[in-house]
Amino acid sequence: MKERAGSLLVADRYAINLGIRLIEAGPGTVTVAMSVTEAMTNFLGGFHGGALFSLADCAFSLAANLAGDRAVAIDTHLVLISPAEVGEELTAVAEEVHRGRTLGSYRVVVTRGDGRVVGHFTGTVFITPGV
Amino acid sequence: MKERAGSLLVADRYAINLGIRLIEAGPGTVTVAMSVTEAMTNFLGGFHGGALFSLADCAFSLAANLAGDRAVAIDTHLVLISPAEVGEELTAVAEEVHRGRTLGSYRVVVTRGDGRVVGHFTGTVFITPGV
Amino acid sequence: MKERAGSLLVADRYAINLGIRLIEAGPGTVTVAMSVTEAMTNFLGGFHGGALFSLADCAFSLAANLAGDRAVAIDTHLVLISPAEVGEELTAVAEEVHRGRTLGSYRVVVTRGDGRVVGHFTGTVFITPGV
Amino acid sequence: MKERAGSLLVADRYAINLGIRLIEAGPGTVTVAMSVTEAMTNFLGGFHGGALFSLADCAFSLAANLAGDRAVAIDTHLVLISPAEVGEELTAVAEEVHRGRTLGSYRVVVTRGDGRVVGHFTGTVFITPGV
Repeated sequence: MKERAGSLLVADRYAINLGIRLIEAGPGTVTVAMSVTEAMTNFLGGFHGGALFSLADCAFSLAANLAGDRAVAIDTHLVLISPAEVGEELTAVAEEVHRGRTLGSYRVVVTRGDGRVVGHFTGTVFITPGV
Repeated sequence: MKERAGSLLVADRYAINLGIRLIEAGPGTVTVAMSVTEAMTNFLGGFHGGALFSLADCAFSLAANLAGDRAVAIDTHLVLISPAEVGEELTAVAEEVHRGRTLGSYRVVVTRGDGRVVGHFTGTVFITPGV
Repeated sequence: MKERAGSLLVADRYAINLGIRLIEAGPGTVTVAMSVTEAMTNFLGGFHGGALFSLADCAFSLAANLAGDRAVAIDTHLVLISPAEVGEELTAVAEEVHRGRTLGSYRVVVTRGDGRVVGHFTGTVFITPGV
Repeated sequence: MKERAGSLLVADRYAINLGIRLIEAGPGTVTVAMSVTEAMTNFLGGFHGGALFSLADCAFSLAANLAGDRAVAIDTHLVLISPAEVGEELTAVAEEVHRGRTLGSYRVVVTRGDGRVVGHFTGTVFITPGV
């Protein structure tokens, strides 16, 4: 599982450019990590929502595509809770809530090193069986 | 308004790295554009949800911060509708649905050149008056 | 269209119990109305989120099922903006953002008589063609 | 905690009319239950999204108001997963993800008696301290 998740991740140029790294992968669950850099700050000087989303979305997409069938995101919801500083290491853990024949639902929690929740995310995929 | 939006955008390193450009800004509304590049593809070979989110989020953040008070995103919802190909030009138009003293609600629609909706987005900001 | 929307609505016991009434229906769009009653208050004495959701959801479901194919809600997002008082008349207008073969996306805005937005809603349906 | 949750619930006319009952309450968590009735069916003959939302919303609102300060819902997201039949008993468990000074984030999972997930929900409250 971890091998498959790793080979998917290296093919995700957007995630690789953000420095997202695979930590763990098992049935329906994936953990990835990312260090907050200067390039991830917004015009308010804070951690960019786009970078937080991308980290959560990466864990979600990997978890949804581990099983083998092609799973494309159709809906995402992100709650932004706490800020994150440059240099901080963030971890995103995705877990499968449900997976049917054509729809799958996943949840991701992003935390800082001190365990504080930075954001949490819900994502739905549309599954094309056999692809 | 456009001048203020422009000066906010150039300070947003994440958005600038994605090549997001300001098209228009008025009271409660901002239009930005972005060209889809190879670096925005995911491991399925499609347009990355993280890039789509970042474009919508940029229009939203600019629209919410045009008025002057510091407005930080607390909730975002993105519906992903249609794919987008490398080379395509996407436009995101943000509009204010409501702005109170401490909360503001915005909506963004992202379209391709042919007018097709790629995704639509809803975002809420928490406003700190006078900052 | 209005006739079909009306016959769907009368078969929706939950909506009928809330006193939801059909105002208008056209291609991809439905308008319904509801009066806020004492039975729609929550323990804080305010207008119940469940009643607001149900009004928006009703407009969404009718709009998504007007075309004939069975369309079942799979995702909903509701932003709660302003309160509503007992006796007030609320109007919900649903509009189609996109309708594909198996997925449809709709948006609903709920307003008071004075035009103020009470809440806005985004909903996705899964469509079973030919049912 | 359970006593306070119970006294809030009896003051929630909308929830009481749906037959929602308190099962458990502790710090940041509330469990409520509801039996699916004929009055909760929609025009497709399925379990009404408005009833599912109301059950989840009830657990969320109680959990967010247990601490004493007035907490009003500002954002809700509901993923609808599996149907539920008339006569089935549904359980909604709300858990606090984060609670700051002015914002709180909660998650609710609604299950059937056989443990299957019917839907899951994310809600944000705006807190007015001391009220």
